[in-house]
Amino acid sequence: MTAIDLNSDVGESYGRWTLGDDDAMLAIITSANVACGFHAGDPSTLRATTSVAAHRGVVVGAQVGYGDLAGFGRRFVDVEPGALADDVVYQLGALDGMCRVAGTRVRYVKPHGALYNAVVHHEGQAGAVVAAVRDYDRDLPVLGLPGSALLRAAEAAGLRAVPEVFADRGYTADATLVPRSEPGAVLHDPEEVAQRVLRMVTDGVVRSVSGADVAVRGDSVCVHGDSPGAVDMATAVRAALDGAGVTVAAFV
Amino acid sequence: MTAIDLNSDVGESYGRWTLGDDDAMLAIITSANVACGFHAGDPSTLRATTSVAAHRGVVVGAQVGYGDLAGFGRRFVDVEPGALADDVVYQLGALDGMCRVAGTRVRYVKPHGALYNAVVHHEGQAGAVVAAVRDYDRDLPVLGLPGSALLRAAEAAGLRAVPEVFADRGYTADATLVPRSEPGAVLHDPEEVAQRVLRMVTDGVVRSVSGADVAVRGDSVCVHGDSPGAVDMATAVRAALDGAGVTVAAFV
Amino acid sequence: MTAIDLNSDVGESYGRWTLGDDDAMLAIITSANVACGFHAGDPSTLRATTSVAAHRGVVVGAQVGYGDLAGFGRRFVDVEPGALADDVVYQLGALDGMCRVAGTRVRYVKPHGALYNAVVHHEGQAGAVVAAVRDYDRDLPVLGLPGSALLRAAEAAGLRAVPEVFADRGYTADATLVPRSEPGAVLHDPEEVAQRVLRMVTDGVVRSVSGADVAVRGDSVCVHGDSPGAVDMATAVRAALDGAGVTVAAFV
Amino acid sequence: MTAIDLNSDVGESYGRWTLGDDDAMLAIITSANVACGFHAGDPSTLRATTSVAAHRGVVVGAQVGYGDLAGFGRRFVDVEPGALADDVVYQLGALDGMCRVAGTRVRYVKPHGALYNAVVHHEGQAGAVVAAVRDYDRDLPVLGLPGSALLRAAEAAGLRAVPEVFADRGYTADATLVPRSEPGAVLHDPEEVAQRVLRMVTDGVVRSVSGADVAVRGDSVCVHGDSPGAVDMATAVRAALDGAGVTVAAFV
Repeated sequence: MTAIDLNSDVGESYGRWTLGDDDAMLAIITSANVACGFHAGDPSTLRATTSVAAHRGVVVGAQVGYGDLAGFGRRFVDVEPGALADDVVYQLGALDGMCRVAGTRVRYVKPHGALYNAVVHHEGQAGAVVAAVRDYDRDLPVLGLPGSALLRAAEAAGLRAVPEVFADRGYTADATLVPRSEPGAVLHDPEEVAQRVLRMVTDGVVRSVSGADVAVRGDSVCVHGDSPGAVDMATAVRAALDGAGVTVAAFV
Repeated sequence: MTAIDLNSDVGESYGRWTLGDDDAMLAIITSANVACGFHAGDPSTLRATTSVAAHRGVVVGAQVGYGDLAGFGRRFVDVEPGALADDVVYQLGALDGMCRVAGTRVRYVKPHGALYNAVVHHEGQAGAVVAAVRDYDRDLPVLGLPGSALLRAAEAAGLRAVPEVFADRGYTADATLVPRSEPGAVLHDPEEVAQRVLRMVTDGVVRSVSGADVAVRGDSVCVHGDSPGAVDMATAVRAALDGAGVTVAAFV
Repeated sequence: MTAIDLNSDVGESYGRWTLGDDDAMLAIITSANVACGFHAGDPSTLRATTSVAAHRGVVVGAQVGYGDLAGFGRRFVDVEPGALADDVVYQLGALDGMCRVAGTRVRYVKPHGALYNAVVHHEGQAGAVVAAVRDYDRDLPVLGLPGSALLRAAEAAGLRAVPEVFADRGYTADATLVPRSEPGAVLHDPEEVAQRVLRMVTDGVVRSVSGADVAVRGDSVCVHGDSPGAVDMATAVRAALDGAGVTVAAFV
Repeated sequence: MTAIDLNSDVGESYGRWTLGDDDAMLAIITSANVACGFHAGDPSTLRATTSVAAHRGVVVGAQVGYGDLAGFGRRFVDVEPGALADDVVYQLGALDGMCRVAGTRVRYVKPHGALYNAVVHHEGQAGAVVAAVRDYDRDLPVLGLPGSALLRAAEAAGLRAVPEVFADRGYTADATLVPRSEPGAVLHDPEEVAQRVLRMVTDGVVRSVSGADVAVRGDSVCVHGDSPGAVDMATAVRAALDGAGVTVAAFV
């Protein structure tokens, strides 16, 4: 019997500005990467988001990022590891406080945007994120890219390291993501994406841009939350999994 | 046998900018009002401050404020109560996260600056602060001005309401603070201040600006942390209390 | 022959977050109240907005506000007048710099949100805005509510004070705006709004909520830019004015 | 006859937090690198600083930086060149507005902190700074490190490129700065620094850490403004230059 988790970014509105359809996404996904106020997510947004997640039984993860509202956390910031660990603890605590009043808790951690990309290779920042999680609560899993410095550091620190695959991203023959600057980096057709996800989950393979199947493995599938058509795509993915009898459930 | 708490604001540096001599103050006081990042206090400052407080056995309180770095939280912001409660939960959680990695916890809440002043009379904002504390952890006391809307709301909500007196502020014959715009609002001589505090603590009275003694009562004495001579004054107050055999201990 | 200006708020996106359809609005209006980065408007948004405005011959005004991104400038902040004047100069200069590279200049000033509302009555803040404009460039008109402290202070300082009327707001029998908390405060039907504007412009009257006509006068009509249906309403207003032979042109 | 400029960072306070002794520095230096609000410098600080500079005839330059208050602009941020150019225009305009009300103008541009270091080699960001200056006012010189990508790009764009030397930094035998992580990177003795500056200015050489003299050339000498002893060191440098009959004057 096969089971898989669906995760997506939510809670990324800020004050007057809304982003994504969190309400719809929280009816589809099983793990919610909730922003923590540094790249997005004012306190009222976080409270509303964690409240809906708690009511629907969606697991809340802390989507920690660089403190860069204007850049939405999508620009690398060369934060020294000690300071980055402090930033992560602050964000974790803030979101956990929101979860507490919503009747739930932060259950995992996933870096956002440029920090997510940085900790694929940046040992210092990867170590900082892991140190923060370990110091805060060593029972919290870390969600990230398979083979990343982040997941290696998490394992080395005795944390649970959870690899994820991407629903709508192209893969190379080496099972790495096709860079966004290249053709085939992002897929847009909901049905095609849904069938790819189903194959990744049930067969452990995906058709790469080279045309050959390549093995990929993840305990969670990331579906995007704020692109046009995000809800349609997530709906298609969920329907395909449900239809195939795959159990869709949080990884924690 | 008499006992009293000494509280002061700490953790109010921000990045490159330092404010006050936290290390010296944390050797004198028994309750530390630690900033939470909204009016002051970057994550690394908060972590260092809570760590020193934990090592010295100084109780940590959350000094929550308006989200106004440029104004240092000293300007009233007409935040709607619901949003203010969310801001307070966010700050509480963030500082509590820092405390957690430092081996302690947030043990009380005290509003900062313009929010402190606002909740003396502003029922909506006072209720918002109290609602946030109650929702987060109803065992947390609220520290504030005697007779304030804040302390009334705290009591009404079943929270412990802790009144404080001020070491270096002038009092009127009505036992209210002399407005800062008037003569006698602030006292500057450490010995005079120390003797006033001793009298407030042991006799429950203070000489008012009218010349008559007036009854004042608090479970804690606020000593300022960032004014010139702050450490000297706190030292004098502490020495006077110690010398008179008063137990100086946290109110929680 | 009758002429009128149409003004609207634009440039209120911020980084990843977009707000309103500026491109559509800049094809309809003649004066653009461009945000200045304090309540909204990151530098790239301001540059793009001023560039489009310049190309289309839309006059740019500085929509100055409180430094409160999370509150979108919609919460009163009790900024001391001296500091507020400095904030306004900073915003004016920043937007004027953007205009300079776009081949235009800031041509007027209009306060935003809670600051707009505050300076209807708050003499200190009204005076601060006027002092900033006068010190920066005494040839810049100030756009605001008829009868406001702002326009009185502007006139007293020798600045041009420009009153505006609101396309979609209800008016009382005293020619003041119906408070948003009361019925009839905001009108939603584009055709009704268009006909009201036409009457205000050509006859100088509007039907008040009491049912009686009341005289109103403005050199500009404010049409909202970020509400649902904003473009439809602005289009209807513009069409009604054009169809009636009213010249729609900037007031400067 | 020899002439040289002395430049230093000022205007780097922020709200409640003060940094450096600007008043003292503005009595010594001839060019003031005034912060622009992104890494430091609230509007009231900028206004006060530009006002003092104007009254004393000190030339004002725009010290532009990354939008990172918590990091004081000392952490590299991977801002895309287009967005960085917009950020620079915004900062230039804002400071120029302050200068305008102070009766002066921005007369040159110097990047701050991590941006200063980045544009030594980062062609994209160097080009962005230059593009912003060129678009804003092509008569503004750019002050930076000799041989940097920034100065090369400035020259290529037809801007005046002004190289600077550092009063208190060690130089290698290649005339580059000794990295801060290595011994000899920073000098602390005011008299030694003063004599080094005098030699750099009059003879065009400096004793390198290898012991050999090496040729260095700058149109301005940077003296630090916020380190302990900064005023003493700047005073010593200025006295040595004055005593030797060197004309100390702005480079513009």
